Amino acid sequence: VDVIVSTGACMVHDAIEAVGGHHYRGSWEVNDAELYRYHLFRIYDIFVPEEDYVRLDFKMSEMYDDIALEHKGESLASNEFSWEIGKRLTDPNSILRAAYEENVPIFLPSVRDSEFGFIHWLHASQDKTKPVLQLDAFKDVPTICGISAKSPKNGMIVIGGGVPRNTIQSSVLASKKGLDYAVVITLDRPETGGLSGSTLEETVSWGKMKSEADHVMVIGEALMVFPFVVAAVTERLGKSFKRNPVFQFQKPANKGG
Amino acid sequence: VDVIVSTGACMVHDAIEAVGGHHYRGSWEVNDAELYRYHLFRIYDIFVPEEDYVRLDFKMSEMYDDIALEHKGESLASNEFSWEIGKRLTDPNSILRAAYEENVPIFLPSVRDSEFGFIHWLHASQDKTKPVLQLDAFKDVPTICGISAKSPKNGMIVIGGGVPRNTIQSSVLASKKGLDYAVVITLDRPETGGLSGSTLEETVSWGKMKSEADHVMVIGEALMVFPFVVAAVTERLGKSFKRNPVFQFQKPANKGG
Amino acid sequence: VDVIVSTGACMVHDAIEAVGGHHYRGSWEVNDAELYRYHLFRIYDIFVPEEDYVRLDFKMSEMYDDIALEHKGESLASNEFSWEIGKRLTDPNSILRAAYEENVPIFLPSVRDSEFGFIHWLHASQDKTKPVLQLDAFKDVPTICGISAKSPKNGMIVIGGGVPRNTIQSSVLASKKGLDYAVVITLDRPETGGLSGSTLEETVSWGKMKSEADHVMVIGEALMVFPFVVAAVTERLGKSFKRNPVFQFQKPANKGG
Amino acid sequence: VDVIVSTGACMVHDAIEAVGGHHYRGSWEVNDAELYRYHLFRIYDIFVPEEDYVRLDFKMSEMYDDIALEHKGESLASNEFSWEIGKRLTDPNSILRAAYEENVPIFLPSVRDSEFGFIHWLHASQDKTKPVLQLDAFKDVPTICGISAKSPKNGMIVIGGGVPRNTIQSSVLASKKGLDYAVVITLDRPETGGLSGSTLEETVSWGKMKSEADHVMVIGEALMVFPFVVAAVTERLGKSFKRNPVFQFQKPANKGG
Repeated sequence: VDVIVSTGACMVHDAIEAVGGHHYRGSWEVNDAELYRYHLFRIYDIFVPEEDYVRLDFKMSEMYDDIALEHKGESLASNEFSWEIGKRLTDPNSILRAAYEENVPIFLPSVRDSEFGFIHWLHASQDKTKPVLQLDAFKDVPTICGISAKSPKNGMIVIGGGVPRNTIQSSVLASKKGLDYAVVITLDRPETGGLSGSTLEETVSWGKMKSEADHVMVIGEALMVFPFVVAAVTERLGKSFKRNPVFQFQKPANKGG
Repeated sequence: VDVIVSTGACMVHDAIEAVGGHHYRGSWEVNDAELYRYHLFRIYDIFVPEEDYVRLDFKMSEMYDDIALEHKGESLASNEFSWEIGKRLTDPNSILRAAYEENVPIFLPSVRDSEFGFIHWLHASQDKTKPVLQLDAFKDVPTICGISAKSPKNGMIVIGGGVPRNTIQSSVLASKKGLDYAVVITLDRPETGGLSGSTLEETVSWGKMKSEADHVMVIGEALMVFPFVVAAVTERLGKSFKRNPVFQFQKPANKGG
Repeated sequence: VDVIVSTGACMVHDAIEAVGGHHYRGSWEVNDAELYRYHLFRIYDIFVPEEDYVRLDFKMSEMYDDIALEHKGESLASNEFSWEIGKRLTDPNSILRAAYEENVPIFLPSVRDSEFGFIHWLHASQDKTKPVLQLDAFKDVPTICGISAKSPKNGMIVIGGGVPRNTIQSSVLASKKGLDYAVVITLDRPETGGLSGSTLEETVSWGKMKSEADHVMVIGEALMVFPFVVAAVTERLGKSFKRNPVFQFQKPANKGG
Repeated sequence: VDVIVSTGACMVHDAIEAVGGHHYRGSWEVNDAELYRYHLFRIYDIFVPEEDYVRLDFKMSEMYDDIALEHKGESLASNEFSWEIGKRLTDPNSILRAAYEENVPIFLPSVRDSEFGFIHWLHASQDKTKPVLQLDAFKDVPTICGISAKSPKNGMIVIGGGVPRNTIQSSVLASKKGLDYAVVITLDRPETGGLSGSTLEETVSWGKMKSEADHVMVIGEALMVFPFVVAAVTERLGKSFKRNPVFQFQKPANKGG
């Protein structure tokens, strides 16, 4: 893996666990007004206590203070931001931490649309004399395109869709390379006209994927399909599943939130 | 309408038309490799010629130069950026232009994930001596939350889902108001665990929507459903459909891209 | 219209109204255990009182007695059965009645899988000395294929899918004609591997549809899409919508049940 | 397993294999007009040669002759029909054969809507002097309801939906028992208003399922989900997966056709 592209929310859920919070197996058949009274936030069939968000807000707000101090007068790219966070997390099961350790950049093209955005507000409004963390919305564009341009072959594995899928596809277009292989695991469908469910064939018309690329779009639940893919690849490569720190995490980071 | 929240791509499609490009009614049952040879980009059943993107790139890159000069040393928020673009477009059918004229802010929480991002790269890499447009990823957060906080009632109409829906819901949560009414028109479904298809009931657990809010999630094709909603509302308000400049545009801005 | 092919349940809902029962606009967000206590049967967002089913059971059981007496020793085809029922209904808004009056056969290839099947049990188990209605499962096969064979052109309009769509497609295959045009309005999708969501292209491989046939598969809610189709056709043909007795019914017959 | 309820088509696919035909792994991204020229019938991503249908037609037409002779003057129920077929098949991997051997009735409530219906036409139109196989559309109703009535507990495992799911649910309603447990594996969704995607909660309003029943509706691809279920159950019961003849078949019987 050369690059991870994620929504802000996915990494928020990773960070919640990394600072001691939890995701609980709940149910979607509940009275949400009652959950509200008990301060439990629901993401389909997963519950996260409000206090785990509050803990994240305060711990991360301090990290923002620290990052702002270290990078005074400088505006970060989203991938620099995620490494700065990863550097400050100690949980070895954290994706943000593991990516930092393994030198894998995590791009967050919609970072503002997540708790990371509201933590910034908290951080910036507390003590007006402190330096404020600056994040440049466009700074990561040449970086990810450059990685694609330098790669002899480009491929992507998409879980879900949305902004991350679009960002990857646009990057390989801008780098004039086009994908050589692509896997999309999703339940989204083309007839909405949206990006998430669009076929891989469609990307060929743009030059985002080469017409001869090896590709498949799996219409299925990622939590079932992706572990198969990882297990199969691991088996073929003759490595034990346990060894790679990236795959040690137990709880799925849900893309909602 | 107090606020529009959009993906970058939706406004890119608006801008393509505003600078003279077109979206053509095509078909999804085509050979995409052939489309590629003819430089036609496909978005489900809509075709956009590559040259319309190229024209956009060059016209907009000049606007970026101009905005950068005007706001030297300043970092814009996404809603400031969209007004700066709207101010420079002359097409009265453009959403960006109409919103600028009507003082309706357009928030673009994932602006980087669209042609706007690649135009920035083009703009920034051409003449290194010129000032570069700065866009602050987090600057619009307090603005949209402030609008929600000041509003006696908060409501949302969502077409599709994705980042825009999440941004609105998070804003009313951060402003501690919660939605009083909500309409979502989508074909996305809850069982993926993603935000787009999540039920409005789920948002109650977070406080994003009040439990007593008037709400409906219409599982249907927005291009069929939304014109009904607009026509019905217009009829009830006793206004002619034609009068409002916001509704004069003829071609749908597709959210793909 | 030369032929209607329906599930048993759709015609059961027609018959419920025809004998004085009702379908009420309800909601899918209810406590079904409570509905059970109040003897209200739910079909997504429509409620039917149990007593309307009971009334149907007794009224129709008497019709079965009467039909059995008239056709003693004879085994009916499903289309003969539906005309026999239509003949005995007096409600001019009933589809079964209108089809009988207009000489349009209604084929019910899965008639047993509906209240019609349980009414047969009731009818057959009451007075063992009375003649029992016989329905031959295969008798309508040559009839529907013969209609297709004699038609200069064959077309179908499908609302939903399931057994009715398959029966039509198989009939035009068996008659060696193939469809000349086809409209399918559905929310079902191909990736399940089932018939309802299968593409019209797929039917070309079988010879069920000609490769040059004019065809469209509309992924949308039939209650929104179909009235448009009917209104547009009526307008083009210059007829008033009100005149045709087939379209006078107000309440949708829901295919569940 | 006390009872299997199937569409006609599923058992047709079983019979095709049993008489020497095959289902080939193909692709849904093909030119269907070309498949038509090569006499290959497509079911999503599975191909069946036309000659395998022709072989089935002739072999099974002879079986119909034989069954008609044996049951002259008698009208069979769908479950009697499927055992008569199973008795005449020799392939030990056939579901029809295995069910006959294990005394598990297979109910075919929409048997007419499948190749079985067209084979009947072939059989009945060949030699007018021979006895014709009679199949009574309603005869299996009291049988399946009786099995439900005698069972201390009733449960169902549904793969897909459609007529088979409805038949089971209606049977436990008619027997006044209600399901004690239920598993549905499907990709169908409730908002169509159809039966296949309707929630299990909905069935509670009818009394088809008890409100306290243990139940789950898995939104997923059955070919992935069901093998897990079987493997897990087999493991817990301490039996080897290989031993049970029902599970020896290798090729999935696809429900299309």
